[in-house]
Amino acid sequence: MVGTGPGSTDYLSPKALRVLQEADIIVGYKTYVQLIAPLVEGKEIISTGMTREVERCRAAIAQAQKGRKVALVSSGDPGVYGMAGLALEILYQEKLHDLVEVEIIPGITAATAAAALLGAPLMHDFVVISLSDLLTPWELIEKRLALAAQGDFVIVLYNPASHRRKFQIQRAREILLQYKNASTPVGIVRQAYREEEEVIITDLENLLSHSLDMFSILIVGNNQTKKLDNYLVTPRGYVL
Amino acid sequence: MVGTGPGSTDYLSPKALRVLQEADIIVGYKTYVQLIAPLVEGKEIISTGMTREVERCRAAIAQAQKGRKVALVSSGDPGVYGMAGLALEILYQEKLHDLVEVEIIPGITAATAAAALLGAPLMHDFVVISLSDLLTPWELIEKRLALAAQGDFVIVLYNPASHRRKFQIQRAREILLQYKNASTPVGIVRQAYREEEEVIITDLENLLSHSLDMFSILIVGNNQTKKLDNYLVTPRGYVL
Repeated sequence: MVGTGPGSTDYLSPKALRVLQEADIIVGYKTYVQLIAPLVEGKEIISTGMTREVERCRAAIAQAQKGRKVALVSSGDPGVYGMAGLALEILYQEKLHDLVEVEIIPGITAATAAAALLGAPLMHDFVVISLSDLLTPWELIEKRLALAAQGDFVIVLYNPASHRRKFQIQRAREILLQYKNASTPVGIVRQAYREEEEVIITDLENLLSHSLDMFSILIVGNNQTKKLDNYLVTPRGYVL
Repeated sequence: MVGTGPGSTDYLSPKALRVLQEADIIVGYKTYVQLIAPLVEGKEIISTGMTREVERCRAAIAQAQKGRKVALVSSGDPGVYGMAGLALEILYQEKLHDLVEVEIIPGITAATAAAALLGAPLMHDFVVISLSDLLTPWELIEKRLALAAQGDFVIVLYNPASHRRKFQIQRAREILLQYKNASTPVGIVRQAYREEEEVIITDLENLLSHSLDMFSILIVGNNQTKKLDNYLVTPRGYVL
């Protein structure tokens, strides 16, 4: 299970590259497999669409059972809303864990990739929350947003919105505004390190006037986070 | 400002490697500079000890002001309790931000490196908290631990203990036990991807019987996290 990092192959580790090149077959989500295609030319590829994660894992496992070396790829890190957990769960449920050898190769996750493009917003304690309620009850997400805001954590939001799903980010913003100033800085990064990359610095007040989708990551500051020109910086507490 | 990832250079991105090789001078914490020494042979190096972060940043900036290309290195990701925020703060405080060009190169942070060695504990919403109270009031850290536990987040603890500092992890455990079962799985990773690497799976009950230091990362599960042999897995919610 290989994390390919954000966007371009410039952030894919030598270890991940080696695993991809040694693999007999590459399994992954279409868009992400395309991004690494130049690295795996000529290899057999199984790619499926979004939300087909269970199918992808089963396909990867079926190939591994045949004795083939399979690279199951996730963009970013495979262990952060990626494929690693699901694949392990299926292996154990199907009692195949003694038959299939597993290695998990970490990658640069979207939160820190986005943070680097924004400056340094994650210099203090932070939470990572997915706003997708396909697999998590919305009430639990609301509760976590409120607790994170009460703790003055920096808040990273994955999957903030899709074309059809705007309610979640609207409601998340309302909850955060119960505890945070409307002027709290917010960074939005879309398609980090890809051709379509967009980096925006705004605030909780104006957040909704920017377009958001499943390729966007939001970082909401804590009460110390400041905007310095085009950077968001959360101080760690050093006396300068 | 370059993130060199965890441990071995196997997890250092091609982009980070290029920046290191193009630099005129490397600035960083001794132990971490030694880890990447084979990649920067022959280059001028300024390395200082732990807790000398402000000094390191100022040294890096002074070199950059002379027109030299400086790589200020952090292990893991420079934006997660690393040097990126501090360097930006100093640049703006000293009004040098128009004179010194900055780029931040993300790296694989210790949280996801440790997670990969443990299996897949970060598959659901998580918080990252540093237990070091050198720069953060201890009361705020306690508050955040309690809120994180109430939100049933997976909890990643950086800087859990040092030779002299054991109180923090003892107290953190007490707080977590107010909200979480004593059987909640805990993963401990020390020196990830280095020669001295140690990976332990235990639980909140038995956590303190293992040795912890500044090179350890702790991951405390949510109420769904399970131990599958030598893996910790937090389910995402797929129906299998």
